[in-house]
Amino acid sequence: MKAKVYVTLKSGVLDPQGKAIQHSVELLGYEGIADVRQGKYFEIALDGSLDEARARELAEAVGRDVLSNPVIEDYRVEVEA
Amino acid sequence: MKAKVYVTLKSGVLDPQGKAIQHSVELLGYEGIADVRQGKYFEIALDGSLDEARARELAEAVGRDVLSNPVIEDYRVEVEA
Repeated sequence: MKAKVYVTLKSGVLDPQGKAIQHSVELLGYEGIADVRQGKYFEIALDGSLDEARARELAEAVGRDVLSNPVIEDYRVEVEA
Repeated sequence: MKAKVYVTLKSGVLDPQGKAIQHSVELLGYEGIADVRQGKYFEIALDGSLDEARARELAEAVGRDVLSNPVIEDYRVEVEA
């Protein structure tokens, strides 16, 4: 069973890394990009013995407590069989 | 229009950052985690004037040429209206 955790900066939090990417992309000549924001993405392989509810609970706990900073970041969890 | 770009290490490429997270998560007492791999996630806001085909093409080009290293990374693009 696999969980995907997406961590993004809350809207309103400045993202200098995203701005740097946006600027570079413009310098490289790509047109039509209004904004870039960078987040993090984690793929977590879970023990096959866990059922889906337990797997989701575990992935939520890790996403909330370990992988994201609740002051400035949001997280989202997807669990796949 | 918004594009989401996911960049992940190809399978087979070592991911020491993911291993460090996995080790920390184990030390913190979470059980049932077999593996963690870290990737990158980008949210790109595109000019509203682009149609969906053009938006996808632009996001694919940026994902392929700027945001990922084709030697060690794969990328995936999703476009939403």
